[in-house]
Amino acid sequence: MTGISHLISKRAKSRQSSHFTNGPSEQPPKGFKPHEKPLLLSYGTPNDGFFPIDSIDVNLVEYPFEHQQKFNNSMENLSISEKNPNSVHIERHTKNPNLIDLSKGLQYVKVEGHDPLIEFTENFIKRTHPPNYDNWSSILTTGASDGLNKACDAILDPGDVILVEEFTFTPFLRFSDNSGAIPVPIKIDLSNDSNGIDLNYLENLLKNWDTTKLPKPKALYTIATGQNPTGFTQTLEFRKKIYKLATDYDFIIIEDDPYGYLTLPKYQGPPKKNQFELKDQLTLEDYLTKHLTPSYLEIDDVGRVIRVETFSKLFAPGLRLGFIIADKSINLVIKNYAETVNRGSSGLAQTVVNNVIQDKLGGVDGWLQWVLKMRATYSYRKDLLLQTIYESKAYEKGLVDVIDPKAGMFVTLKIEFLKDDSDIILKMKELLWKVISYGVSVVPGHNMTVDKEFSKSRSNFFRLCYAPANNDYEIIESGKRLTDAILEFYENGEKF
Amino acid sequence: MTGISHLISKRAKSRQSSHFTNGPSEQPPKGFKPHEKPLLLSYGTPNDGFFPIDSIDVNLVEYPFEHQQKFNNSMENLSISEKNPNSVHIERHTKNPNLIDLSKGLQYVKVEGHDPLIEFTENFIKRTHPPNYDNWSSILTTGASDGLNKACDAILDPGDVILVEEFTFTPFLRFSDNSGAIPVPIKIDLSNDSNGIDLNYLENLLKNWDTTKLPKPKALYTIATGQNPTGFTQTLEFRKKIYKLATDYDFIIIEDDPYGYLTLPKYQGPPKKNQFELKDQLTLEDYLTKHLTPSYLEIDDVGRVIRVETFSKLFAPGLRLGFIIADKSINLVIKNYAETVNRGSSGLAQTVVNNVIQDKLGGVDGWLQWVLKMRATYSYRKDLLLQTIYESKAYEKGLVDVIDPKAGMFVTLKIEFLKDDSDIILKMKELLWKVISYGVSVVPGHNMTVDKEFSKSRSNFFRLCYAPANNDYEIIESGKRLTDAILEFYENGEKF
Repeated sequence: MTGISHLISKRAKSRQSSHFTNGPSEQPPKGFKPHEKPLLLSYGTPNDGFFPIDSIDVNLVEYPFEHQQKFNNSMENLSISEKNPNSVHIERHTKNPNLIDLSKGLQYVKVEGHDPLIEFTENFIKRTHPPNYDNWSSILTTGASDGLNKACDAILDPGDVILVEEFTFTPFLRFSDNSGAIPVPIKIDLSNDSNGIDLNYLENLLKNWDTTKLPKPKALYTIATGQNPTGFTQTLEFRKKIYKLATDYDFIIIEDDPYGYLTLPKYQGPPKKNQFELKDQLTLEDYLTKHLTPSYLEIDDVGRVIRVETFSKLFAPGLRLGFIIADKSINLVIKNYAETVNRGSSGLAQTVVNNVIQDKLGGVDGWLQWVLKMRATYSYRKDLLLQTIYESKAYEKGLVDVIDPKAGMFVTLKIEFLKDDSDIILKMKELLWKVISYGVSVVPGHNMTVDKEFSKSRSNFFRLCYAPANNDYEIIESGKRLTDAILEFYENGEKF
Repeated sequence: MTGISHLISKRAKSRQSSHFTNGPSEQPPKGFKPHEKPLLLSYGTPNDGFFPIDSIDVNLVEYPFEHQQKFNNSMENLSISEKNPNSVHIERHTKNPNLIDLSKGLQYVKVEGHDPLIEFTENFIKRTHPPNYDNWSSILTTGASDGLNKACDAILDPGDVILVEEFTFTPFLRFSDNSGAIPVPIKIDLSNDSNGIDLNYLENLLKNWDTTKLPKPKALYTIATGQNPTGFTQTLEFRKKIYKLATDYDFIIIEDDPYGYLTLPKYQGPPKKNQFELKDQLTLEDYLTKHLTPSYLEIDDVGRVIRVETFSKLFAPGLRLGFIIADKSINLVIKNYAETVNRGSSGLAQTVVNNVIQDKLGGVDGWLQWVLKMRATYSYRKDLLLQTIYESKAYEKGLVDVIDPKAGMFVTLKIEFLKDDSDIILKMKELLWKVISYGVSVVPGHNMTVDKEFSKSRSNFFRLCYAPANNDYEIIESGKRLTDAILEFYENGEKF
């Protein structure tokens, strides 16, 4: 079997793409010659002369939290740009083909997105996760959630089954539900050096699938790097095994990777105090060859993988900008869906991201240098949180354990003394109140299940995220409050 | 009967909104006290210190096409901002509650949008089209298409009927189709002083509706001001009659108004040559009380109207930003749908639009002053195109007629000699090839029908749009090419 077009949903296949401003589709009459300089009275597109914006200057920082550094040096009222002009000027018109000018960026554009940015995302993937086949493309989205909803629409018809990691980014269930599909949870192995998905469980499930009860699965949804919420990362060898199952049982893999570029070295003891010293730790080549975990794209040779990326975690969530790397036949039906449900991402966001990256940072490698600075800061934060936990009494007493993530934004804190409890979820809820009363909010595992009952016995953990904190103090203080709360709960007989 | 909640679709009603980061929903245990300074390890939101952008300067023009004026004055290589600093500085942090700073604008936000901009749209509607009831709200969208798709999803279940003007913005049919609804065309009266919809036809259709064939209509979709493609505008009196039908037959009115603010005075002869002289023609009070046609919102007293607006035509399409004014019960289900299908509009676009309007233009009235400048330029363009047609041989000979629009971007050019032709569409297609060979693209009426066969006898027209032209010359030249092509087609025995 070649290709995956038989796995595209009936609904997605049936959508037509046409527009009333398209020219005639019939053959022209005899003697017809196209005009050399045609003029437009057709499209309802305002000329860019109607746009109130003439140009935009985007003022950048050199590294994350630079503004706080400046602030600490008591230059409170000076913006970075005034001290250190590091700006991108976006003009109404430009002739540079790598840039998007405002006459284009503020205009209507095809839903796939602006060509320079599509091309950037394709070059970016070739550099980081080169697909193992040729017939792929990139299409821009309004972020990972939009990408996931579109992936579901492309593949899933009402009644279709999709396999989902039992603990997951639960908004995904809204997207599979929007397609009418049925999510089936896959067990996760929560031991510390796990790959996430419990491979034996998945193999047995597929081998013994009872098609009289449910149709065989059409897709697997996995957050394979820095899994949300558990933090696990699948090795290349592990991915090859999962991919073989996808081939044998003929299903699509939706690979959601919002922050996998934030690779995190194993905890080696208390991190260095000054995060700004960390920014040049790693060479780009070492990062690409030794740190970054390969994507399913690098195994896939038929277009069975839909990779969903986003600029939310590496640039900014408010852009509402991401992209999908997939087989061209899949991205075609996704384009048709985008013409119905949201008309693509903001051209302004595309323009700012594209021109910041291409005009200032230096394209793919320059962007990756920014990502390296991000990962250095995240790595420092992760180790700071782990240090706080490792040095706590609760850890010393064996009340908690942590999963040290290889990538991403999440640490899993396992509540060891609830491991075999007969009513884990009730206890976890009561413990959560204690944690909140100590002044820290965390996400309990049972909030992120596909099926609470199915996952009950593995729900004795909290997801901790070190991304939102304003500074080191908040991370350390959060870790202390959390472990103190757990200690008190335990010493109070596992009661509030 | 009060309220319209019985008209909300089953699908929309059934959607749940919840997030795994929500706090516990149960009662807290005895003795629980919330912490005074809680810290976050819950949300997966990157701190704004991770955003590479420190500030943005948006450089504005004073009036449409100002950059061309400057260009003509041979200041080619100077951007407007360098000559005339008229900029909005968007900071990482601000304390002004009317502005959106980058720490918020580039961050995740609720799908409804940022509060300052939602509030602006509400104040804008109160000033321009004050709703006639209290329980309404505004929700931001990614533009009018998104707004229309969301309106359909909110109201229409599979098999439901929606009434649609027979010539319309046909992408709407994708949106009604996405809800599984059945569009039924409503005849348009194409005589020159028409209100658009053929009221007698609609009344008879509703009176004699055969529910054994199709369920009674759930909604009417209308572009009531500057109708697309015909250009007609419904008077207030006419709207009251339509609204009465909506009440009597209990259906929703989806009022699509992408460019109704561009009010256009009747053609009074050749327009003044310099468009820049036109910008202060009208006072704001005269505009609001004498020029702007009231919306259905101003009649509606129960929340039966969903008004879909956009910033595409008045600010820029590439923002992908619009809003819906509707009953709160409708905007609530639209919010839940937005959590599934696109996660709302770009925060960057919201930030730029909000701060340009609130920080520089001066809020609602300042924004309306910009709209007045837009309408002056559009009015000049419309009259320039009409002048070219009126002065053409084709018009002199009675081969064509035009509908002079009261608002919007479209002029309808009726091909008079094809009025009673037995095969209008074939002739119009052949004529279109002639027009294209003369170097101008236009949209034939038959491309914008709900049902080609139903509207065949009224399809003898082209839609002309004066928005995309780069300058006056292109408008005049387009009009000449078009009327010359029609004349030649006619003189050639209605053949290419």
